[in-house]
Amino acid sequence: MEKIRVGIHGYGNLGRGLEWAIKQNPDFQLEGIFTRRNPKDLSIISEGTPVVSVNAIESYVGKLDVLVLCGGSATDLPVQTPEMARLFNVVDSFDVHKDAGKHFANVDKAARETGHLGLISAGWDPGLFSVNRLYGEAILAESQNYTFWGKGVSQGHSDAARRIEGVADARQYTIPIDKALEAVRSGSNPELSSRERHLRECFVVLKEGADPEAVREAICKMPNFYADYDTTVHFISKEEMAANHSAMPHGGFVLTSGSTGKESKQLIEYRLKLDSNPEFTSSVLLAAARGVARFAREGRVGAMTLFDMPPAYLSPKSREELLAELL
Amino acid sequence: MEKIRVGIHGYGNLGRGLEWAIKQNPDFQLEGIFTRRNPKDLSIISEGTPVVSVNAIESYVGKLDVLVLCGGSATDLPVQTPEMARLFNVVDSFDVHKDAGKHFANVDKAARETGHLGLISAGWDPGLFSVNRLYGEAILAESQNYTFWGKGVSQGHSDAARRIEGVADARQYTIPIDKALEAVRSGSNPELSSRERHLRECFVVLKEGADPEAVREAICKMPNFYADYDTTVHFISKEEMAANHSAMPHGGFVLTSGSTGKESKQLIEYRLKLDSNPEFTSSVLLAAARGVARFAREGRVGAMTLFDMPPAYLSPKSREELLAELL
Repeated sequence: MEKIRVGIHGYGNLGRGLEWAIKQNPDFQLEGIFTRRNPKDLSIISEGTPVVSVNAIESYVGKLDVLVLCGGSATDLPVQTPEMARLFNVVDSFDVHKDAGKHFANVDKAARETGHLGLISAGWDPGLFSVNRLYGEAILAESQNYTFWGKGVSQGHSDAARRIEGVADARQYTIPIDKALEAVRSGSNPELSSRERHLRECFVVLKEGADPEAVREAICKMPNFYADYDTTVHFISKEEMAANHSAMPHGGFVLTSGSTGKESKQLIEYRLKLDSNPEFTSSVLLAAARGVARFAREGRVGAMTLFDMPPAYLSPKSREELLAELL
Repeated sequence: MEKIRVGIHGYGNLGRGLEWAIKQNPDFQLEGIFTRRNPKDLSIISEGTPVVSVNAIESYVGKLDVLVLCGGSATDLPVQTPEMARLFNVVDSFDVHKDAGKHFANVDKAARETGHLGLISAGWDPGLFSVNRLYGEAILAESQNYTFWGKGVSQGHSDAARRIEGVADARQYTIPIDKALEAVRSGSNPELSSRERHLRECFVVLKEGADPEAVREAICKMPNFYADYDTTVHFISKEEMAANHSAMPHGGFVLTSGSTGKESKQLIEYRLKLDSNPEFTSSVLLAAARGVARFAREGRVGAMTLFDMPPAYLSPKSREELLAELL
């Protein structure tokens, strides 16, 4: 079978994760890595792969089955995904839940006008967690969905702590509270406040002369980010930060607790435990790219999400293999 | 929106579970319950619903959007599903993994010849577990899939124990072994024998005068069913059996343990904990019936499984609602 010709747009943690994932999936051929930086400055792992300035990406029109966008959701993807959907079939991991409808509409318009297909929000949340919330609710009509995140690094909360006066560096871990998880698993369908669901743990490197107690208070009382949670702050050295807190683990849980019949309790639990958040997200992006390439060959255009993707389209296996090996 | 007109074929535990599920899902209208028994002998819970002999089911052609088959996989479904796929769009929970390819082909032929759609093996294993094995493997290319069942009643193993001389009644629970689950969760990708994965626990009511030790030995040494497992046998009274072992709990785990990048371990875990196995299976059947009704309206024919079903088709919600509420 012909390989799926794929391009990587953006070469940060996600882009590099995608490059690794492509090495694990022999049905893909990496045609190029597209960057805003000077291509000469990139040190890539796939020897022989062209590294190309995004300014020259139009020369790849017709040469890619799918382009995977590896930029950030705050400012990159809202612009890049619709723009690139005018040239290629695209996949992204757009993760701002409240703006998903708008992003979907923008990508849909650009893709339809030019006969392309664009899948947005392929990752784990949104992404696999979304799919599991949907399955749970569709199967258990009388149910409640619960999502817990962690233990893992939250970039947004780490950034917020870094903006505080006296903080040289900070890393924030979101931690699901066991007692809350157990309450959900028991089938009691508890009402849980933010504080009852998650703890926040901060590791902070202070600037010279900064007052630890003032920093602690500023973090713990910060509205939106910390005030609604129980937060622990640890002060550590720059060296300890580098040694123990540079990995990007994450994960979490989606639980659907429902009832059927007269009084039967039914529980669905989906859990991810990830050593590397960006590498896992890249792996979801690549599986989604496989589905997009297949749908595009069938002539489908416009925007879609994993909600619209038959699971079989994510797999390189044939129907016969799926029935024999995985059913 | 018009309701989905649904029929129930077969009124055992699954059929009754389906009847309950239809009550929880207002987008369905139950048009009839079809039975091989004398319709007068059925005591149903949906007042006013016609109970009809399967011999008269042809009079419902054109009156059902989808018929859900609630028979057994050993002898009922291999005949009934293809037969009914000539008259209606159908869904079943066929669960003999090794015969799935053949069943698929039979249903596909009957459905294509008559312009219907038939979805087979909608349940939890096969069904949701299959889908999770597929997602896991498609996303983590370098990975291993593990399936554990239980704690729950295995009908096949209970029946096997009941056939032993001296046994009046028996119930067998399959129990996943915690140590094995933990080894998988650790990311060590262990090789696990049958004995290392599951325990078997039997509750037995003896016939008068039967020798408990002879029965215990006969059970524990039974090839295929018990010999490859550590089995515990408890002797109990008929009354205790009725009081404590008449429920049908089940569940299990699908774990995908893989690695990405240089050495990042990634774990996906899907778990079901079910008070009622047949009621949960019925709930999956009904969600699948929703998807079949929608695909059939779009003109799709032939056989399919949940592998081919976009998650969104299982939900009564619109795309806008899904993006806003579940993404």
